[in-house]
Formats: sequence, structure tokens, C-alpha cells
Amino acid sequence: MNDSREIELDGHIIDSGIMEHVLDSILDMGGDFEILEFSVGKRKTDTSYARIRITGTGADNLDSIISTLHRHGARLVDSDDVKLVPAEGNRIVPKGFYSTTNYPTEIRINNEWIPVEQIEMDCLIVVSPDKQSARATPMSKLDKGSLVVIGEHGVKIHPPERSRSHEEFEFMGGSVSSERPTVTTIRKIAREILDTHKKGLKVALVGGPAIIHTGADAAAASMFHEGYIDILFAGNALATHDVEFNLYGTSLGMDIRTGELVSAGHKNHLYAISEIMRAGSIKRAVEIGVLNSGIMYECVKRNVPYVLAGSIRDDGPLPDVITDSMIAQDEMRRYVPEIGMVLMIATMLHSIAVGNCLPSYVMTVCVDINPSTLTKLMDRGTSQAIGVVSDAGAFFPMLLEQLHDLQKK
Amino acid sequence: MNDSREIELDGHIIDSGIMEHVLDSILDMGGDFEILEFSVGKRKTDTSYARIRITGTGADNLDSIISTLHRHGARLVDSDDVKLVPAEGNRIVPKGFYSTTNYPTEIRINNEWIPVEQIEMDCLIVVSPDKQSARATPMSKLDKGSLVVIGEHGVKIHPPERSRSHEEFEFMGGSVSSERPTVTTIRKIAREILDTHKKGLKVALVGGPAIIHTGADAAAASMFHEGYIDILFAGNALATHDVEFNLYGTSLGMDIRTGELVSAGHKNHLYAISEIMRAGSIKRAVEIGVLNSGIMYECVKRNVPYVLAGSIRDDGPLPDVITDSMIAQDEMRRYVPEIGMVLMIATMLHSIAVGNCLPSYVMTVCVDINPSTLTKLMDRGTSQAIGVVSDAGAFFPMLLEQLHDLQKK
Amino acid sequence: MNDSREIELDGHIIDSGIMEHVLDSILDMGGDFEILEFSVGKRKTDTSYARIRITGTGADNLDSIISTLHRHGARLVDSDDVKLVPAEGNRIVPKGFYSTTNYPTEIRINNEWIPVEQIEMDCLIVVSPDKQSARATPMSKLDKGSLVVIGEHGVKIHPPERSRSHEEFEFMGGSVSSERPTVTTIRKIAREILDTHKKGLKVALVGGPAIIHTGADAAAASMFHEGYIDILFAGNALATHDVEFNLYGTSLGMDIRTGELVSAGHKNHLYAISEIMRAGSIKRAVEIGVLNSGIMYECVKRNVPYVLAGSIRDDGPLPDVITDSMIAQDEMRRYVPEIGMVLMIATMLHSIAVGNCLPSYVMTVCVDINPSTLTKLMDRGTSQAIGVVSDAGAFFPMLLEQLHDLQKK
Amino acid sequence: MNDSREIELDGHIIDSGIMEHVLDSILDMGGDFEILEFSVGKRKTDTSYARIRITGTGADNLDSIISTLHRHGARLVDSDDVKLVPAEGNRIVPKGFYSTTNYPTEIRINNEWIPVEQIEMDCLIVVSPDKQSARATPMSKLDKGSLVVIGEHGVKIHPPERSRSHEEFEFMGGSVSSERPTVTTIRKIAREILDTHKKGLKVALVGGPAIIHTGADAAAASMFHEGYIDILFAGNALATHDVEFNLYGTSLGMDIRTGELVSAGHKNHLYAISEIMRAGSIKRAVEIGVLNSGIMYECVKRNVPYVLAGSIRDDGPLPDVITDSMIAQDEMRRYVPEIGMVLMIATMLHSIAVGNCLPSYVMTVCVDINPSTLTKLMDRGTSQAIGVVSDAGAFFPMLLEQLHDLQKK
Repeated sequence: MNDSREIELDGHIIDSGIMEHVLDSILDMGGDFEILEFSVGKRKTDTSYARIRITGTGADNLDSIISTLHRHGARLVDSDDVKLVPAEGNRIVPKGFYSTTNYPTEIRINNEWIPVEQIEMDCLIVVSPDKQSARATPMSKLDKGSLVVIGEHGVKIHPPERSRSHEEFEFMGGSVSSERPTVTTIRKIAREILDTHKKGLKVALVGGPAIIHTGADAAAASMFHEGYIDILFAGNALATHDVEFNLYGTSLGMDIRTGELVSAGHKNHLYAISEIMRAGSIKRAVEIGVLNSGIMYECVKRNVPYVLAGSIRDDGPLPDVITDSMIAQDEMRRYVPEIGMVLMIATMLHSIAVGNCLPSYVMTVCVDINPSTLTKLMDRGTSQAIGVVSDAGAFFPMLLEQLHDLQKK
Repeated sequence: MNDSREIELDGHIIDSGIMEHVLDSILDMGGDFEILEFSVGKRKTDTSYARIRITGTGADNLDSIISTLHRHGARLVDSDDVKLVPAEGNRIVPKGFYSTTNYPTEIRINNEWIPVEQIEMDCLIVVSPDKQSARATPMSKLDKGSLVVIGEHGVKIHPPERSRSHEEFEFMGGSVSSERPTVTTIRKIAREILDTHKKGLKVALVGGPAIIHTGADAAAASMFHEGYIDILFAGNALATHDVEFNLYGTSLGMDIRTGELVSAGHKNHLYAISEIMRAGSIKRAVEIGVLNSGIMYECVKRNVPYVLAGSIRDDGPLPDVITDSMIAQDEMRRYVPEIGMVLMIATMLHSIAVGNCLPSYVMTVCVDINPSTLTKLMDRGTSQAIGVVSDAGAFFPMLLEQLHDLQKK
Repeated sequence: MNDSREIELDGHIIDSGIMEHVLDSILDMGGDFEILEFSVGKRKTDTSYARIRITGTGADNLDSIISTLHRHGARLVDSDDVKLVPAEGNRIVPKGFYSTTNYPTEIRINNEWIPVEQIEMDCLIVVSPDKQSARATPMSKLDKGSLVVIGEHGVKIHPPERSRSHEEFEFMGGSVSSERPTVTTIRKIAREILDTHKKGLKVALVGGPAIIHTGADAAAASMFHEGYIDILFAGNALATHDVEFNLYGTSLGMDIRTGELVSAGHKNHLYAISEIMRAGSIKRAVEIGVLNSGIMYECVKRNVPYVLAGSIRDDGPLPDVITDSMIAQDEMRRYVPEIGMVLMIATMLHSIAVGNCLPSYVMTVCVDINPSTLTKLMDRGTSQAIGVVSDAGAFFPMLLEQLHDLQKK
Repeated sequence: MNDSREIELDGHIIDSGIMEHVLDSILDMGGDFEILEFSVGKRKTDTSYARIRITGTGADNLDSIISTLHRHGARLVDSDDVKLVPAEGNRIVPKGFYSTTNYPTEIRINNEWIPVEQIEMDCLIVVSPDKQSARATPMSKLDKGSLVVIGEHGVKIHPPERSRSHEEFEFMGGSVSSERPTVTTIRKIAREILDTHKKGLKVALVGGPAIIHTGADAAAASMFHEGYIDILFAGNALATHDVEFNLYGTSLGMDIRTGELVSAGHKNHLYAISEIMRAGSIKRAVEIGVLNSGIMYECVKRNVPYVLAGSIRDDGPLPDVITDSMIAQDEMRRYVPEIGMVLMIATMLHSIAVGNCLPSYVMTVCVDINPSTLTKLMDRGTSQAIGVVSDAGAFFPMLLEQLHDLQKK
């Protein structure tokens, strides 16, 4: 029969559920299988190996099955070099292009496996003209003539195997918890921040204006001041609220110390932007003593890089905001390679945008008062995220307390 | 014209919005009005007075309008004694019965105004056989022959006028806040607890099992131990989770210190119930040293009364649980007159049940991770409730901290 | 080594994920394993078999592991008859009792495997005095002296294997969908109702008052009239709202045809209860012509059994309501054996209560406007439920349309 | 006393609640008042008039009070021409600038009242150099030297008086309804669409990709085809999903007819973008026959203007997308003056952005499965919005049915 092909799998394929997903997918898609070889790891340290012949209902169906299995880490036995075609125009993807996962990925070229750099999901793989390197490339940056990988031939991915170690974050792996002990959860996140730094990696905050609105500005600023957070991704709203609060004590006109709206409070929002406009930039406003505290102040003082991406609902915006969304995306991508952990707090838009650019091995913690924000983020592919249903106003002070407590020990 | 009648209003009728609601309602219902007399309070301490002739499109419409205006505090000018009819059978309400609000209410009988005792919403007013007293009576307790008030004639209610004083809870009055500064809000609640006690009134907790699940059992128990809470309304779940946690460290089988499920954890839930069964009651379990900490332990030790009401999803239940819902309602009602403030935490069922029995002047704070629970409670008539979107696991430790902080001063 | 034991597994243990869960659980709990025998089903129709030696860190740990594996369908190789101990008192569970799953279960007694009747989750297994039969027994009905199964020895469960057939409900198995095509989802539910009837099983509705409030009373009543629903589980609220709507056109005083509140509308709620009180029961009210349409009317006319369970927030309640929660539970359990499918619409309390009593093989569809209701139901163990985020007012008319459409073909 | 000033109010100031808000605000802010003159409209057609002297605790407090009352429609008795100052730099607001509401607004200049054009909230009022016209100007478009209105002197606003007519949308005015009869609500929306067209105004749709995901693409496209919707505001996601669905039958890789994910489905998303890239634009793709159905197709065919605004989470984006958020805002503003009604469906980002630009008299209906989206929109100032908790997949087919039904009559 033509419509069959052999794949192989190895690693902890039983206890990671990979074997299950593979057989399941074949049956779900109407295919059939025969297990040709199966050696099972007898002990927990041993790995297993399987060789399976897949039969489809036709050539298209078989392609479809192979394509799905590939995403579970299966390799074609008769694997060969990747196939490449040049892009016919800017931002025009070639038919049959290989669409990336956010898992570590290798491609075979000239009989050698090379890693795909800057992996992120839903990209194309573009091979350099000299065929010495490859890179995950978003559609928006695909140029005419770029060499694009076609199909799964010669592509190998490494889906995460479930962690065997209890020292790692125990509830890694895509769950939303509103019925967990709050302090216990926050302590684990605190420990993870310290561990990320120990590994020499950076912690990024993706934050929305609710951080200031719910009264957590000072605690969040301390996170930067004390070096727990190394990078900031946000929008005009977070930065403006932070400046407004630190200049006038209000957030969109609400007095944070009393919770009451002050008269004509929204003007403070526009005054805050104007003060920064007059200085020329946030950095300059800090230097000339206009802005003396808060999240943005700490970022400037500690040289924490920040990317402020514009959106269509912005007032102002601040001069530091990148209003073109494609340029803002690129700017965010620059920092991704150094990041080991991301805290996403109370912003769906920025969280999804950053999540799109992250490799699967970046620890991602998402905090929102609204469980559906968390669910959406995971549905969109950031399946490694851990969701915590909480509000920023409670989360940051408790997190800081846990960090201090852990540091004491 | 027959289809017109005069009403009068007095008090702070402009700045309380009563005048607005009255005129609005007339127009909404298709009626017409003529303002016959209007003397306005020139200064903020003065009250105003209005006499208004209402015209309806017919007798029924006019009745309907008068009935609605009554609920805004309007009185018929030609007011007379209440009309009474005997109930034709148990739990059969007479046609045209007066249905109570949860506002303080008086009725005129033998030309004198007497207060309606134990006011709660959606009840009938039953007058004692000697016509010396009156009482709000839920339908479930209406006996054949009871004298029931019919229509609005001779009934006067006192809807709350907006507070003029900033010493009272500033955001009193039906709002859900998920975008408020968390610490600020919790501090206000703490202050209100202390104020309620200063007035000699009691603070009740209506709580769900999420208090234990989210890790707040110890903080909640301290609230009882330190005398901040005086009454507990809950169900089988809260009490069982509390006992389970204090005996075994788990809540429905989840280890609260690690957030992990322990094997066969649900058995702990049933063991906890069994231990109390074996002792005979929660009180006895405390006395013989089986139960030595937690919310229920503190209730027993400090003689805090508790009502545990059964529901159809209960396991067990504990011997202390009142499985008949009508008997449980009565038991809750016994404690209502002493209550000045209620904290409703993470339970919709019990919160609505208790809310139904509360007069409008009881300060009600409702905390839930799910904003729709708060909205529902207010929609069902407990419009004096203040909603806080938060989880119990963060709320209780922060509240205790604020209480301690306020006490220090 | 004493601290090791052998288990065996068979069936579609790889593609159902059972093998994965077993190995995972061992490692999660700190144990170790050696795979002694493993024959893999080569083709999709073949089953696999595994024999595994488990080692724990001690006797307790090993027990704990075995207990967990048991729930995945593993059997001890050295399986023997179940161990039985008599209950020491009413509602006092013996130490080490076997706590049921909602999967089909068998026990070995006198060397023979007998089925456990009326299986539901979190119960004990009580063996008849003559040891000829066994039954899942909730704690509340455990009598002194009953023979209770202890430990997992001699207990075998059959966790569901993933369906192989695309004729069955494709998204069976614990998912909440708010981003699915609405009409597609509802059509599948319609088809499932017809299939359930074809199998000779019954369809039950667990419904809340929002069915009437959102304007779906007539469509829901048609579901009963046309024979699509065979059993009703609800509370006082659904029945009263239905009666109120069919007598007065309002639901808690809101006119369903205009969406506006009518004056003193809540009185209609109490009048509705009174009318039934006066008649004596819902059935009698239908017979004497007081109630002539609606859900309850159709139930009476078509002899559809209904269980109305009381709760502490009830007004009235109707004479047909069972106010004692334990008696109401028992009454619901009577109908469970005939049920093949349950629709749970807009009621968390009743849905969880019914879910607790259902075996795992009953198709369960849960519809709520609030995704967290769906999540909670699944978290509490009804993991076979399919969640649909929708409101009853849109769901019922669309479901009825799809049913008619399917019947035409 | 210096610290007092007189204001006047006229119109339906009692039954619109304006009088209440005015007196309330004075007291809330610590001020005092004396009612100098009060003539009350005796009948519902009569208007009332009040002159009130306000005293503050000091000059600042008085300013603050006046500023707040202004927003309720109060005018200073000693009103004069507006004060103007030139802006000191681009996007730098002058101290004390007047911040607009979204109510119709007039300013006095050279002793004449002229209307402020293109009113939207939170803008400045910029007067033309010849002082013949004035325009609400967002901060982002404030140029150095522009003449900006300072303070409330000479500014008059017209807050909406509550509608007296039942022919208008009965539940106008800031409410979220998840417990309303669904069909009744949708019928009202349908009627409002027809009425808006009768008035010669346009209906705009602000839509998110869930319209396609929940299966409503065809129904939504019909809304354009049949002329019910005249303008489209959306993002890259809606347009791409629509193109993907109409080219391949999938939406982000989910087959809309079966609700199942197809293998490598996300590639369809990128293919869809590529097809439009290859054509050059959506319009061109329709002209050359690449795109033959769907929302975007209908827009092109019927010359419905659309604004596709970019965001940082976009793939692609389509060549028609405006990636710079400030340019996209301007483009949206161009269409606002013709709009009489806006449907906001399943997109928070775009809904808030459009809501920011709308005058208060534009009927706004917001539909989302998540009640918190609705609440947020209203909190942000679009208080005239009516919220409907529903999913697009149910909403559009039901709306179309109601429109057809109304048209038949």
C-alpha cells in the first residue's frame, strides 16, 4: 500500500502521554496503525522506543495524520533533509509551509541537524541563504525569495516531557486555579522567581493598568527596585497610570488612598501625559526630577528595559509608546531570548501578544481576576501558562512578602 | 375625576432622589401628576415637603402607581387605618396582601402608628389578634385566620436617605468593585467591623467552603478567636471542610500547605464527618478533645452561635446540620435582630438566604471571586450590599492585618 | 522487599491514557516501578496488557500508590476477596473504607465477581448480609452493622476508555466550550437526545428558574410535551416561576413579553404559590383547571416524574417541594438507574447534587451563562460533563428547532 | 463671602434626577447650598428652574464643586465668554483645560453660544483662530498654539434627560442584563436598528473574531447584505477569520460545520492572509474572484466602509490593516458623525476604542458572553451602552430572524 508510512518515537513516551496522543490522533483522524516495534523503559530512568506503521484512508489523510503526529514529537523513519522553496513575495507564505510550534525544533539540512533559532509558535522556518542556520520567522517579516521549509520532512521537535522532579514548579502545565490555597500558590511563584535568577535568566512583567488601580503600584515598583523583575512589557495605560499615581496620587482620577473619585479626575491622566511630553520622555522626566517614584521611575533608575506598545484605545499616548503594532512586536521579540519567566498581570491584550512570542520552556504565570482571560491565553497556544485567579491589588503585596520571607532563609 | 388621588412626601426628598423616583415612576407607568404644594429645604439641614395629585389611566392603573410610590416612601394624604383580612388557610395569601420591603415600616391601627417587627423583604404583615402589635411574616409561616394587612392604606415605610456623613462607609449602597484599591477597601471593612461593635451590634459571617480551600481557615478562625465575628451562618460544607482541615490538614483531599491532592483524599472528608458523628456533635467533639482548632472549634469555645443549613448536595451531613430548609430558615431568623453587619464570603446560596431575612439597615459586605455572584445578590433585593471581587484566601489574612493595625492605634 | 507489590492492567491501556496515568502517579507519589511484562495491542482493535511491580518508600506510601492506581483501573495481581467490616454506628465510616468512583465497579466475594449496584461517587460499598449483592451506599444511609468493604483488595473498576466511534458525541469528556460554533454544538446535543431514546434510556432535565426568566418557558414546556424530556429535577424556584409565568405572564414580577418589571410583581410569585397551596398540589391544580400550560403542567399531563428539592432561600415553598435535603436526595436517586442523559440548565446547586449521584456513563450536558459554574461541576467529579456557555433563553428555542429539524429527516 | 457662587439649572431637573445629583454632589464634596429660587413644573410637560447659591470650604473646594456641577448641566449665573489659552507645545495640555463630556456642548464666545463640533469624551475644546467655531480635540492632535478652553466659564452641556416616550428603547441607560428574556431583548434591538435607519442615521458594527468562531459569519454577512449594517470597525482578527472561513470553512483551524479542529489548521489562517496579500487588498481579492462570500465580501460589494485597526497580537496582518494605532483612531473618528447606533459584539479592545469617540446620544448595544466586558465598557464612560450577555453565535441568527419578522409587518 502506498498510503502508509513508518514513524518512530523515543523518550519517556508512555509516562509523558506522547504514545497515547499519537495512537489517539491516528484513530481520531480515521487512520489505522500497526506497532512494529515497542521496547518499554522498565524503570523510571529508562526511555522507551516505538516504531509504528500508519495507514491513512488516502494520501491526503495520511499527510494530515503525519502532520499531526509530528507535533507530538514523532519522526518519519525515512527522514531526509528539509524541503525548501523560496517565498514568492513579501508576506506571502508558500503552499505547504511548515508552521512552527513553540517547542525546541531542529531541522536536517545537508544531513546535519541544526537548531531553529528564536522559536515561537505559528511562524515559518526560514533557512539562511548559506544554509548554515535557520530561524522561526513570523509571516510579517517574510521577504520575497526567503528559503522556507515545506512539510514535516527533516523537522524534529521536542515536546516537553513531564517533569520528573518535585523541585520544579509542581503545577506546571496549563491549569487555572481559583480553588487553591492562595498563599501556597504565591509562595511557589516567589520561589520560581528566585530560581529563574539563579539560572541566570530574566524575569519579565507583562502588566496592565489594574496594577495601579487596585493599589499595587508601590509593591510592583518595589519588585523592580529590589531586582525581582528585569524587563517590562506594557502599554500606554500602565505607564500613564503609574505616572499619574506618582505625580498626583490618583489613577484615572480615583484617589488610591481613599478609593474615591476626585473631581475632574480624568484631567490628571492627561496632565500626567503632558508632563512627560514636556520633558520629552519618561527617562528625561526622571532625570530632571519630574518623576520620582513608581514603576516607570524604577525602570529608568535600574536600567530595566521596557517596551510600551500602543493600542487604539490609548489617550495621548506618552512619547515612549510605540504606536505601530508591528514595530512594537519586533521590539518585544528582541528581549525574548533572555527570558526565563514571565508574570502576566491583568492584561489580556499584552499577555496574548507576549505569549505568542515565547518558547514553550519559558515559565509563564498569568494572574487575572477574570478566569476567562486565563482560559483564553491557554487556548491561544500558551499552554505552559499557570493561571491564578486573583486581583493585582492582593497579589503583588503578598508576592513581595513571600519573596522577602524566602530571602531571609 | 375618580381616578386621581393625593400623596405626600417629606424629608430630604430631593437630594435623596425620592422625588425623582416618584415622578419618574408616575410617568413610566403612564400616569400624570400635578404638584399641588412644594416647599423646598433651602439649606442642607432643612427637609422638603411635597403634595402631589396623581392621575391614572383608570382605577387599576392608579392602584398600581400608588403601590409603586408607596415603596418610595409616599403616603396617601387620606391615609386611614390598615385594612385587615384573615388568611383563608395555611400558607394561602389573601388577594391584595401588602408585600413588605426590607425598610423600617409602620402601620396605622386604631389611629396609632405601630412599628412592624422583624421586618424583612417579601413578607406579609400579620397583626396580632389584640391588634397591639404587627410582625413581618414569611408566607411559610402564615396560619389560617391570621390577620393580614391588605393594600398600602395605613402603611408607611422609611426608605434609607442617603447618608450625609463621611464617617459612615463611603461606598455604601449597592456597588461591585473589582477596580478599587484592594487594601483601601479592606481597611474600610475592618473599620466598619469595629464600629459595629462599638454600637453594640453583632457581626455575622456567612461563609462557604472556599474559605478553607483557599487557605484562609486559620485567619478566619482568628476572626472568631479575637472576637471580630459573633455569629456564623453556613452549611455542611464549611463545617466539614474546617473539621477535615484541622484534623488532617486537607480540604476535600487537597493538602492546604502544598496545594496538592493527596491520594484518596475525599475519604478525609468522610472521616471528618464520622469523627463528629462518633462524638455526637461538634460541641462534644471539642469537649472531648477530638477537635482542637479551626473555625468550628473557636465557635464552640467562645459560645458563638452557628446555624448550619443543609442542602441537597451535602455529604454526610454532620449531626449539627439542619437538613430541613424551612427549619433552618427559622433558626437563622432568630439571630437577625442583633446583627449590625454581615460578611458574606464565597457562598451564593447562603448569602441569598441570609440576605432575604435582613432589614435594609444592616451593613452587608459580600466577597466573591466571581462578580456575577455579587450582582445576583443585589438583584435579588439585598441592594444595600457592597460587593468585593476577591478570593477568601487573600481577603481574610489582609482583613485580619488591617484589624490588628487599626486596633493598635 | 516487603514494600513492593504487583499490579496488572489490560484493555486499551495505551491509547486511553491509562498506562500514562499509572506510571505518572507512581512517580508523582515518590514510588518506583519495574515493567515486568508488556504486550502491546498491535492494531486498534487489539488490547494491551501490562504487569508492573510497584515499590513504595514504605508500607504507607505503597498503600497510597496502590490506592491511586486502583482508581485508574489497576488490579493487584494477588487479588483476593474483599475485606469486610461492620459499621460501628450509623453514619460512622470504618477506617480504611473503600470510597467509590462513579465508574462501573465489581467486587470479589466468595471467589466470584459481582457488580456493585447503584454506583455513584464518594460512597461506601455495603455488602448484603447474605453476601450475594453489593451496593454503593452514601454515608448518610450507612447503618450500624452494615458490612462495609475495606481497602482496594478484591475491587475492580472500569474507567471509561475513550470512545473509538465518531458516531458518538465527538467532544465527550470534560470540556467547556465558549468558543465553539453555537448551532453546531446544539445540533449535537439534539442528536444525542434522540440517540438516548433509541437506546431505551431516559433524558432528565435539571433546571433553574433562569429558564423562565430568560423567556424559554414555552420552549422548555414543548420539550416535555413532545416527549424529549422524561424526568425533571428542580427546586421550588423553577416550579414557582413556571406557575407564575403561566398564570400571570410574569417571572418574579418581570413581564416576560416586554422585559419590564410590573408593579408589586413579587406578589405574583406568592400568589402563584398560594394558588397551588389552595389546590393542594401541582397535580391537583392541573386537574381542576387552575394551571393550564407550562413545564409543570406538561409534567403532570404526561406523567413525567419530578423531584422538587427545597433550599434555604426558598419562598413558600410549594406543597410539592421536599424541604428535607436528605429525603430529596433519596428521591432523586430513585430515578437515576433509568437515565441515559442529563441536561443541566442554569442551576449550580441542583446540577452538583444530581451530578453526585450519576454513574460515569451517563451523558451529561451542562448549560450556563457563567463558565465558572461549568468548571465547578467538573471539578467536583462530574468529569464526563460537557459544558456549554449559553443562556437558557437562547438555548431551548435553538435546541427545539434542531430536534424538529432532525426528526424531519 | 468670597467663597460662594450662584448656579442655575433648568429643564426636567427633578424627574431627570439632575437636581438630586447637584445637591448630592455639593454635600459629598463638603460644600453647602441655599436654594434661592425654585419653580417647579407642575405637570409633566412643564420644566422646572432652580437658582442655588453654593458655598465651598475655600476657593479650591468651590472650584471643584462648580466643576462637578457643571457636568450635571449647571451653569454659572454670572456666565461669561470662555477663557482661552494657547497650547505651549504639541500634545501638552494647558493647566486648567476644560475636559469634555460626551454630551452635546456649547461654548460662549463673543457673547454668542456656538456648538462644539465632533464632541467626544475626555478631549479638549479647541477654538478656531477666527473664533467662529470650536471642536473637541483629543490630546494626540493638540498642536502648539491652538486656542484651548480653560475652566467651565462659558461652557454649557446638555446631559440627557430621561426619555419620556415609550417608543424609545425602554431600557436605555447603562444596564447589563443576563436575566432578561432573550428574545424580547433581541427584538428591541432589531426595532432600534430599523428606527435608526428611518431617522437617516447609520448603524455600525464593532466586531471581534468570535463572530466567526461561534458560527455566526453567514448571519452577520447577511446583516451587511440586507443593508442593516452600514459601517464596520474591527481588527485584523475578524477580517482574517472571515476570509479564512469563506475560503476554507475553518476559523483558526476549527471546522465551523463540525466544531472540530482540523490538522495544521492554523496554517489556513496564514494562507488566508497570504491570499489577500497576493491580491494586494481585500477589495482586489473580491474583484478578481478570490473572495466570494462573507462579511468582508459584503462590505466590498455594498461599499460599506470598514476600518481595520492593528494590535500587537496580530498575525500577518492583512494589507488593509492600519497598524499605527493613532492613525487608526483618526480613521474611525471620520465615520462617527453619521452614526446613530452601534452594535459592539465580542471585542473589548475595539468596543472601548469606539466608545471613547462616541457622543452620548448614539445608541450603543454591547453583546458579550462575559459580563465583565460589558461592565468595563460602561465604567470607562460609555454609560449609554446597553449590555447583553450572550454569545455571537446565538445572537446574530436570532437578530436576523427578528429583523425579518419586523420587516414583514
